[in-house]
Parts: sequence; structure tokens; C-alpha cells
Amino acid sequence: MASVAAFRANCRKVMCIGRNYADHIKELNNQRPKQPFFFLKPPSSMLFPGDGPILHPRGVNMHYEVELGLIMGKTLRDLGPADEKGALDAIESYVLAIDMTARNVQDEAKRKGLPWSIAKGFDTFLPLSNIIPKSRIPNPYDVLLHLSVNGQIRQQDKTDLMLFRIPRQLSDISRVMTLEKGDLVLTGTPKGVGEVKTGDVLKAGIEGIEEANIEVDVKDREGPYEFKET
Amino acid sequence: MASVAAFRANCRKVMCIGRNYADHIKELNNQRPKQPFFFLKPPSSMLFPGDGPILHPRGVNMHYEVELGLIMGKTLRDLGPADEKGALDAIESYVLAIDMTARNVQDEAKRKGLPWSIAKGFDTFLPLSNIIPKSRIPNPYDVLLHLSVNGQIRQQDKTDLMLFRIPRQLSDISRVMTLEKGDLVLTGTPKGVGEVKTGDVLKAGIEGIEEANIEVDVKDREGPYEFKET
Ligand SMILES: [Mg+2]
Ligand SMILES: [Mg+2]
Ligand SMILES: [Mg+2]
Repeated sequence: MASVAAFRANCRKVMCIGRNYADHIKELNNQRPKQPFFFLKPPSSMLFPGDGPILHPRGVNMHYEVELGLIMGKTLRDLGPADEKGALDAIESYVLAIDMTARNVQDEAKRKGLPWSIAKGFDTFLPLSNIIPKSRIPNPYDVLLHLSVNGQIRQQDKTDLMLFRIPRQLSDISRVMTLEKGDLVLTGTPKGVGEVKTGDVLKAGIEGIEEANIEVDVKDREGPYEFKET
Repeated sequence: MASVAAFRANCRKVMCIGRNYADHIKELNNQRPKQPFFFLKPPSSMLFPGDGPILHPRGVNMHYEVELGLIMGKTLRDLGPADEKGALDAIESYVLAIDMTARNVQDEAKRKGLPWSIAKGFDTFLPLSNIIPKSRIPNPYDVLLHLSVNGQIRQQDKTDLMLFRIPRQLSDISRVMTLEKGDLVLTGTPKGVGEVKTGDVLKAGIEGIEEANIEVDVKDREGPYEFKET
């Protein structure tokens, strides 16, 4: 199992699947995809336990999305979409992740056909738990994800609701771009996403797995950035 | 100056500006942006001299875009948009880059409001020259970029045509996400982009700078990927 320090130093690609839980697609009024689609977050957005608060950029409607993360342990290219063993063998460990999203920035990008990289890529927009040893999750579809805001449960669903399973995800990514040791793949968020504001406290976790705990508060981001639609 | 090996091992983020030359915006019938916008390419897309051909994914309309690349030498956050000295001080060296783009994949993404990461992120979709020592480019706006396909010049423009200059680019990126040592920033492409096919030979360079030479051919990509609109 990689340490947080090793993972932080070596992760070069964070690939995230969009719209991978049916009820989450409905809540955002999105189309259900006929095939998986993916986007990148920059490694500079990672926020590990002890790194400090999530920073809220001015003018941004900031949403949480709790997701199971796969840390890759080997190079993967052209994995078969039904290769369950190949997919699981390629996973080195797990991590719980919150895919923070600047929803109004993303909405403008979607309307104008622009990339999502800014909406998904602000500093601190990828809170992570400690690394979860692979042996702690014998079945990645038997994982109960939960996220609360100020003590109120907002997301709580099992990973068996994924529309595209892990082999299909790693297949579709790896036939486009090589997955490398240390890369992180986020597997999508269940229903219940919503806004958080300065002063809120987010807690997330996986039932029964202490290493998956995330507890992080939200503070205003200083500096010149302000979102304004153009 | 970093070596190719050190850069390849350490680059964690490739940020690219879109629509930064007026005549290139016109040729693709795009809107001129009121502010810069950016997208990520994965480090796994890098293709250095000697690495082999550009691989053409099945069903993809594959376009070249020659661009001046900035390799960052230090951490940058919240740079001022007019801080010419701060911007140039943060550049460690330069590299010539071809931002290969799956145009039909991108067109579908733009129409459907989906991310650009796949269209921009295939393996081999970032041909690079050798590292160009900073001293070889005393003025990054006085650089004549050129690209030819099978011996015919297709792109040939000076970097003084950039709509948003380098300090503004680094300012807008660094107020969203921290730029780190070893990150690469692509500064946009001038007019003349177009398709290349298997068997074509691309040459690109910067007038007067031998380190900037790129010569790479195009071959079919093996494997299961095929682009089909859904
Ligand atoms: Mg997500
Ligand atoms: Mg994108
Ligand atoms: Mg480009």
C-alpha cells in the first residue's frame, strides 16, 4: 500500500467518470450517457487529511460529490470491458474522495461547449481520505458511501448502483489513454449532491472502514479570483 | 535547464489555453472569448523525439495545433495579470508542442456540453520538441512558429498575435489552480490547423532554434478504440 506522501508525490492523472449513478443523473436533469465519459482533475487539487480547509472561490456555487477512488498499481492499456480480474488486479489501493465542483462554472461551460477543467480543478477541490489498503475492500461494489454536511446525512448509497462497473470504466479510459501506476480514478457519485458554504463542515466515509474518514471544513478563498459569467 | 527525462518524469499538469489567436478562432467558427479559458491534457499524452509516431485512433478526425509551451520553474499562485516580470521569472524553459485534437470527438463534446478530456487526451496526442533553454528565447512574443505536413507549410505565425499574453494566461490559471515546478502551459495555436492521416509526416519548429524541431509521422492506432457518435 502506498503512503499518502508517496501517492501525493507520484499521482499524475486524476480521471473521473461523470453520471455513473442513475438517481444522480436525474437530480441534475442530465441525459443518461450511452457510454461512460470522463474528465481530468489536476493533481494540484488534492487535499489530504491535515492539509486544511476546502477553499471556496468567490462567486462559486460549490457542490460536493462523494466517490470511491481507485489508485492504480500498474500500467493499463486496452483493458477488456468485461475483464473483472484484470481490473481488480490493476488496483493497488482505494481512497475516498470528494469531487468538489464549481456548479455554476460547470453550468456555463456546458451551455457554451467549453471544457470542465476550471470547474473541476480549483485548489482544494479534491478532498481525500487516507489510503485504504486493498484488503479492506474485498468487493468494491459492496461499499456504502456516506457524506454529511453539518451533521446531516446528504449522500448515502452503495456502490452497487454504479451504471458502468469498474472494468468498463478502466476499459474505456485505457483504450484512450494509458493508466499509469499512481493514477487515481474516481468512479462517480450517487444522488444527494448539493451546495456547501463557508463555515460548513463536511464528513464523509465508508461504513466500517476507518481509513476512509474525511472531515473537512469550508473557508473563503482569499485572492483575486471571482466567478462572473461573461 | 531540465532534461527531457527529468521533465517527462516530473510534469504533473499540462494546461492549455483555447482560442488565443484571432484568425484561428475564425477558421473554426468559434466565439472570441472575453476571458481566457483552459483545459487539461494528461501527462500520459506526451510524445518526445524518438518516442515513435503519433497514433491515429480509429474514426477520429485528428487535427494538429502547433503551440509554444512554457515549462514552469517555480510555484505560482495568484500572479497579477500585468506582472510581466513575475511571469517570465516563473518560466524555467520552453518547448515546442503540437496539441493534437480529436476534432470530431471535441465537436460532439461541445455540442453536448461534455468535457474535452478525451478529445485532447489520447496517448501520443502531445508531440514535443527537445527542451529549449530559456536563454534561446529572450522574447517569447518574437517567436515564429511553423508547422508543415508532407513538406507543405500549414501554420506559420508569430507569437505576437496572442490575444491574451503570457502574464494574463498565468494569472488566470494560477488564481484557480497552483502552477507547480515542472508543469507545462501551452499558449494557443495560430491559424492553419487541419487534419492529418496515417502516413503523413508532420514537421514543426521555431525559426532559428534547432532545439524546437519536431518531426513525427502518423500511424494507425491498434486496439479496440473506435469513435462513434452516440
Ligand atoms: Mg464527480
Ligand atoms: Mg475538460
Ligand atoms: Mg490548442
